[in-house]
Amino acid sequence: NPVDKGVDYAQYFCTYAFLYHQKEMLSDRVRMDAYFNAIFENKHHFNGKTVLDVGTGSGILAIWSAQAGARKVYAVEATKMSEHARSLVRANNLQNIVEVIEGSMEEITLPEKVDVIISEWMGYFLLRESMFDSVICARDRWLKPTGVMYPSHARMWMAPIRTGIGDHKMGDYQSAMDDWHNFVDETKTYYGVDMSTLTKPFSEEQRKYYLQTSLWSNLHPHQVIGTAAIIKEIDCLTATVNDIEKVRSKFSLSITMDNMLCGFGGWFDVHFRGRGEDPAEQEIELTTAPSVDCGTHWGQQVFLLHPPTHVNEGDNLTISFLMSRSKENHRLMEVELGCEIQQHSGKLLAPSKHKYYIE
Amino acid sequence: NPVDKGVDYAQYFCTYAFLYHQKEMLSDRVRMDAYFNAIFENKHHFNGKTVLDVGTGSGILAIWSAQAGARKVYAVEATKMSEHARSLVRANNLQNIVEVIEGSMEEITLPEKVDVIISEWMGYFLLRESMFDSVICARDRWLKPTGVMYPSHARMWMAPIRTGIGDHKMGDYQSAMDDWHNFVDETKTYYGVDMSTLTKPFSEEQRKYYLQTSLWSNLHPHQVIGTAAIIKEIDCLTATVNDIEKVRSKFSLSITMDNMLCGFGGWFDVHFRGRGEDPAEQEIELTTAPSVDCGTHWGQQVFLLHPPTHVNEGDNLTISFLMSRSKENHRLMEVELGCEIQQHSGKLLAPSKHKYYIE
Ligand SMILES: Nc1ncnc2c1ncn2[C@@H]1O[C@H](CSCC[C@H](N)C(=O)O)[C@@H](O)[C@H]1O
Ligand SMILES: Nc1ncnc2c1ncn2[C@@H]1O[C@H](CSCC[C@H](N)C(=O)O)[C@@H](O)[C@H]1O
Repeated sequence: NPVDKGVDYAQYFCTYAFLYHQKEMLSDRVRMDAYFNAIFENKHHFNGKTVLDVGTGSGILAIWSAQAGARKVYAVEATKMSEHARSLVRANNLQNIVEVIEGSMEEITLPEKVDVIISEWMGYFLLRESMFDSVICARDRWLKPTGVMYPSHARMWMAPIRTGIGDHKMGDYQSAMDDWHNFVDETKTYYGVDMSTLTKPFSEEQRKYYLQTSLWSNLHPHQVIGTAAIIKEIDCLTATVNDIEKVRSKFSLSITMDNMLCGFGGWFDVHFRGRGEDPAEQEIELTTAPSVDCGTHWGQQVFLLHPPTHVNEGDNLTISFLMSRSKENHRLMEVELGCEIQQHSGKLLAPSKHKYYIE
Repeated sequence: NPVDKGVDYAQYFCTYAFLYHQKEMLSDRVRMDAYFNAIFENKHHFNGKTVLDVGTGSGILAIWSAQAGARKVYAVEATKMSEHARSLVRANNLQNIVEVIEGSMEEITLPEKVDVIISEWMGYFLLRESMFDSVICARDRWLKPTGVMYPSHARMWMAPIRTGIGDHKMGDYQSAMDDWHNFVDETKTYYGVDMSTLTKPFSEEQRKYYLQTSLWSNLHPHQVIGTAAIIKEIDCLTATVNDIEKVRSKFSLSITMDNMLCGFGGWFDVHFRGRGEDPAEQEIELTTAPSVDCGTHWGQQVFLLHPPTHVNEGDNLTISFLMSRSKENHRLMEVELGCEIQQHSGKLLAPSKHKYYIE
């Protein structure tokens, strides 16, 4: 494992040590309602049971598990947020049930195996942050053979969209380049140095920044101009790191209205279904799909197409999708997306290939 | 040395690998003019000489040194920006003079000692980034006994200021806290968890963020309401890491107009004076003081006082100043500032103590 712990802390964990950041998650009502209902409408999974909360943050899921009747809850948190979790547990008088353990899930040891693993491990577009790796590790080491995963299933989705944001970004990119050309001129005039050889790498850098980095967005359902497809399904009880390290998928999307195809929206959902032989009484869904309501803090990730293409109802897109982890930072992702458009008439347009970064 | 290289790269160097960031520095006309004039108005220091550019970035100072007649320039850069520097050197046809070396100054080896060390190592309020350590290291290993430092001297300054930004920040802080109280109520009501025990640590976190973190600002001279004092003078030829690791100073500031004292502005200047026995022909100054002109990308750092105090012309402030490096990141700073106000009448007000973070 070539991941440098110190670097990982500096780049990833550190933000979770801020109450401000935990509060943002705790203020996401869609997220909170889903976990709250998953727990309290399925008390039989918690009552008298031992629970492990992977990445407890403020401690909220551990506290709910205890309130739902757990006998013992192990609440593991890598950052100093553990101290706040501990004081929250005490303030809610659950210190005899919830044990907060500061440490990384991969390194700590529990005194026993558990009946339930609960975790809120989902990043943008599900897999950003690669935190599910830690849940897999916890599951393989600490879940009883009869144990239940909360959530139990996860899916990645993608749909064709229209959006004005691409034009904005193109404008930003173009003014960055105008600025650059000015800069090159001035540097030559005033300081006698010809910078024009850097124009190409600068434009690549800016293109990556403005056009190839996926964008957080809260899409309205009206912006979705075709069918949504499932890219990937994960059974949290059986998935391995190998299954999620690279996500490769080929799927088709049908255009359902004449419109400009400006890009693709990506999102996820997770379900709390319990375990085959020990199912949930109430299945709960947490979806981050485009919604007329307020949405979630995850929003959707938008992958822009430049320039947008005109598409018509009945056109069919064949998408080949490959998401892998960035070499520099295993918690960030790179996406290669191939798109073939077959028009309603049967005519095939020239296929296109695109590269994106989920930063 | 307890600094983790990987972490240091992830937290510090990585930003310098972007042309966008180098361009920001290259577009700072005050900075550019100072170095340009320092070199070209003191060609005798460069003509036929060997030069070391510590942290060459885009290569600009190395290229100028070569254009001013250097026999050989070693241009050392820790990041992949070295590749752009190399292509810029080639595009300006100086590849026979400028040798770009990718590596950290502390680790690379030169084939010879040099006559001049040039570097643009200054961070916000001079010492943020702690890059002067690398210049000291380069000087002690590679500068000839008769060698010259560019720049040769540096100073830190502080002055009492008025500003409306403190009220803004106080407003931001207060609305963050209002929001928090709402959040605590809602979490109790909807989710049955009492978060009030986290109110104190949250308020400390937000206070630190909004009120105790020094602010980048481009102050107008009118905002300076008293005399400016020198906190620290550095002779770049003789300073040691020990001299700059902690900056401790006691100085006084006289109020020159009746006004609200809202805080302090901190800035720096550097001079290019050559060496005692081998002085510059034209001394050049680079100052980042509050200015009516466009200012520099460094701006000034503002340390806010809460609440502001009314002061009058003739009042005298005694400041005890201590700046040290943050334990978590040696390139960031913490400032302890004690302030005693003696009114014109002779009356002493209660002294106050303040803690700031330069992030
Ligand atoms: N390998 C690991 N070991 C321990 N904690 C981890 C971890 N990976 C991520 N975390 C922690 O997991 C948390 C994810 S955010 C979710 C916080 C909380 N469970 C809630 O639902 O509100 C962060 O606080 C992060 O620091
Ligand atoms: N110890 C070290 N070794 C090598 N390069 C370093 C260094 N510390 C900082 N740097 C580099 O020093 C540069 C400082 S910014 C100045 C860039 C350039 N000299 C100019 O004046 O425009 C950055 O590119 C940074 O990556």
